[in-house]
Amino acid sequence: MQAYFDNSATTKPCPEAVEAVNLALTETWGNPSSLHKLGVDAEKLLEQSRQTVAQSLSCNPEEIYFVSGGTEGNNLAVTGGARLMKRKGNRIVSTAVEHPSVDEVLSKLSDEGFEVVKIGVDSYGRVKEEDLYEAVNSDTVLVTMMYVNNEVGSVMPVRTIKSALKRAKSDALIHIDAVQAYGKLKINPAQLGADLVTLSSHKIHGPKGVGALYIRKGVRIKPLVYGGEQEMKMRPGTQALPLIAGFAAAVNAIPDYKKSLEEATALRDYMLEKFSETGSIEVNSAPDALPYVTNISVPGIKSEPMLNYLSSNGIYVSSGSACSRGKKSRVLTEMKLPDARLETPLRISFSRYTTKEEIDYLAEMLEKGSKEIRKTGNKNL
Amino acid sequence: MQAYFDNSATTKPCPEAVEAVNLALTETWGNPSSLHKLGVDAEKLLEQSRQTVAQSLSCNPEEIYFVSGGTEGNNLAVTGGARLMKRKGNRIVSTAVEHPSVDEVLSKLSDEGFEVVKIGVDSYGRVKEEDLYEAVNSDTVLVTMMYVNNEVGSVMPVRTIKSALKRAKSDALIHIDAVQAYGKLKINPAQLGADLVTLSSHKIHGPKGVGALYIRKGVRIKPLVYGGEQEMKMRPGTQALPLIAGFAAAVNAIPDYKKSLEEATALRDYMLEKFSETGSIEVNSAPDALPYVTNISVPGIKSEPMLNYLSSNGIYVSSGSACSRGKKSRVLTEMKLPDARLETPLRISFSRYTTKEEIDYLAEMLEKGSKEIRKTGNKNL
Repeated sequence: MQAYFDNSATTKPCPEAVEAVNLALTETWGNPSSLHKLGVDAEKLLEQSRQTVAQSLSCNPEEIYFVSGGTEGNNLAVTGGARLMKRKGNRIVSTAVEHPSVDEVLSKLSDEGFEVVKIGVDSYGRVKEEDLYEAVNSDTVLVTMMYVNNEVGSVMPVRTIKSALKRAKSDALIHIDAVQAYGKLKINPAQLGADLVTLSSHKIHGPKGVGALYIRKGVRIKPLVYGGEQEMKMRPGTQALPLIAGFAAAVNAIPDYKKSLEEATALRDYMLEKFSETGSIEVNSAPDALPYVTNISVPGIKSEPMLNYLSSNGIYVSSGSACSRGKKSRVLTEMKLPDARLETPLRISFSRYTTKEEIDYLAEMLEKGSKEIRKTGNKNL
Repeated sequence: MQAYFDNSATTKPCPEAVEAVNLALTETWGNPSSLHKLGVDAEKLLEQSRQTVAQSLSCNPEEIYFVSGGTEGNNLAVTGGARLMKRKGNRIVSTAVEHPSVDEVLSKLSDEGFEVVKIGVDSYGRVKEEDLYEAVNSDTVLVTMMYVNNEVGSVMPVRTIKSALKRAKSDALIHIDAVQAYGKLKINPAQLGADLVTLSSHKIHGPKGVGALYIRKGVRIKPLVYGGEQEMKMRPGTQALPLIAGFAAAVNAIPDYKKSLEEATALRDYMLEKFSETGSIEVNSAPDALPYVTNISVPGIKSEPMLNYLSSNGIYVSSGSACSRGKKSRVLTEMKLPDARLETPLRISFSRYTTKEEIDYLAEMLEKGSKEIRKTGNKNL
C-alpha cells in the first residue's frame, strides 16, 4: 500500500492538469505573443487560464500575473511592495513563522533600513489578534502574512489586518502568502482588503513551476525581472503556457470548499483519535488548525529514522518544510516546543485524495516503526 | 498545408520532451527536496537532467542552474554579474541589438551609475571585431553579448571577447546570451572564456517556462530571488521538474550540429534562390548569418497584412521579435535600413523539421500575397 501524506510539500497533478499540460505542449504550443494564428490560439488559452484563476479569487483577470511559483510570487510581492511604499513609512509587519521566501526577503529589506517587526506565535504556532493590533503603527507600509502555516497548519489572522491598519491610521499594503490556503479555503482578496496574494499551482494538484500573484488594480509594484511586454511588463518572458493551462485546469478541479473542509476535518479527527489510542503521539498543531496539516511528535523517535521507516513502507510524510530540508524547524522553535518534541516532528498533510484506509495504515506503521526504531536504538534506519 | 517558420519565437515541443514532461507529471511528481522515496526519485531525475544540460556545454553539472527561461537567465546574469563586479570598475560593454531582457537591464544599470557602452552594428546586424576591441577598456567589468541575433540571425564575435579583454587588461565577466544559438551551434563556455551563458528550452523543441544559466565555478553572483535551498540558493523555489525533464529530453534530442547546419544552410540557400526568382524580395540578413534565421522585406507590403495573409493560409512567420510585438524593430533600426524596408520585415526562422516543400509553399504564397495585398491596397487583410 502507498499513502502520500506530504501534500504541503507538493501534490500529485490531477488528471485534468496533466491533460491540459499535454494539450498545450502538442496543440497550443505557439508563443502567446506571436501575431499569427498559432500565437493567437496560445494567447486565448493564456487569457482563459487567467480568467479561471481570477474567478477563483473573485477578482479581475487583469489582477492576475503568472509567475514561476510561490517563491517568486512572494519575492515579487514583498520586495515590490516594500520598495513602492518606501517613502510613506519604514515599518514592515510580519510573523516569526513565514516561509523562507518571505522571511529571507525581510532580512534583505531589514539590511536596507526597513524596521521589520515579526509577530511571535503561541505554542500552537498561532498569531494572536491583539499582537497584530499592537505591531502595526502609522509608520507601517507593508504587512505580509501567510494565510495558513506550512508546517503546523495554523490559520493566521489575515482577516484582521485591514482593521488593525485602520485603527493605526496606516494605509500599508497587505500581502497574503496564500500558498497553503489556496484551494482549501475560499480566498477573496477584496474581502480581505489584500493588495497582493501569492498562489502556487503545485500545492493544488497542478504542475510545478507556476503560480500567480494577485496585484490589486492600481497597485503599481516594480518587477523583479525586466524584458518583454508579457504579463503587462510585471513578469516578462515567454509565458509557461503548458504549466499555466495545467494550473488553470487544477483550479477548475478544486472541489466545493465547504464539503472538502468537512471531509478533511472528519479525517483529521479520525486520525487524532487513532493516534490517541496508541498514547505515545503528541500533536503540535492547534485544535483549530486547518485540518489538512497536522504536525505531530513521536517522543524519543527522531524524525529522520521514522521518515525513512515509513518511506520504505510506502508512506510519505515530512519532518518539516521541504524547502529547508535537514534543518531544525524554525516554526517549531518559535513555538518554543521542548527539545524532545523539536527533534521528533512529523508533518502529515492531507489532500482531497486522502482516505481512511491510508490513515489506518499510517497509524499502524507509526506504532510498528516506533517499536522497531526503539529496538535498534535509532540506528540502521 | 501548414508551414511553421517562427522557430525563433518558439518551437514545437519534440515527442521526447512531451513524453518526459508527462512522465514527470504522472510518475516522478515528488518534490525534489522531500526526503522520502518520491522526493529522492524526483531529485534523481532533476540531477540527471542537470547532467544532460551540462554535457551539452561540456561543463560540470554544478555549473548549471535551472531558471524559468531565457529572460530570467539574462536578468540574473547581467544584474548579478554587474553587481558582483561593481567595485572593480564601472564599464559594461554590450551591443545595440541585444534582446530586451538584456537591454532593459542595461538601462537599469545605467541609471544606477554604470557606464554602458553599446557597440553598433553594420547594415546586416553584425558587430565588427575591431569595434569590440575598441569598446572594452581596463575599467570594463562585464561584457554581455548575444551569440546569435534573434531577428536577423547575425553571429556575434563572442569568440573574440576574451582576447579583447586580455588586450585591454580587464578581467571582466563574460555573459553570452546563447538563447538563439543553443542547439544550433556547439557551445563550450570554457572555450569561449564565458562566465555566464543563458539557455532557453522552448527554442530547442523543449517546453516553455524553463531555461538554464551556466555560471562558471567560482563566480558568485547574487540571486534575484530569495528563499529555500534549491539550485544552491541561486534560484530558490520548488524546481519545475516536469519542465526540466522535458528540457533535458529536448537537449538529448539535439541532432548532430554539423549535419544540421549543413542541411539548414542548403535549405536557406534554396529559399533565397526561390526568392530571387520572384525578384521583389530583399534580404536583410547577412550572407554569413546563421541559416536558421532569415529576415526579408517585401517592398511595399507592410508586415502585418502579409503576416495575416500567410497565417490565414497556414504559414506562420513573424514581423520581428515576439517579445516586442507591434513595435518597429530596434534591430533593423540599428541596421539603418531605409524606411521602406523597416516597415516591411518578415522573419523566417527554420527548425530541424523545416522542409523544401514548406519553402516552396512559402515562396508561392509570398508572391500571391504580394499581388493580393497590392490589389486591395493593404486593406482588408
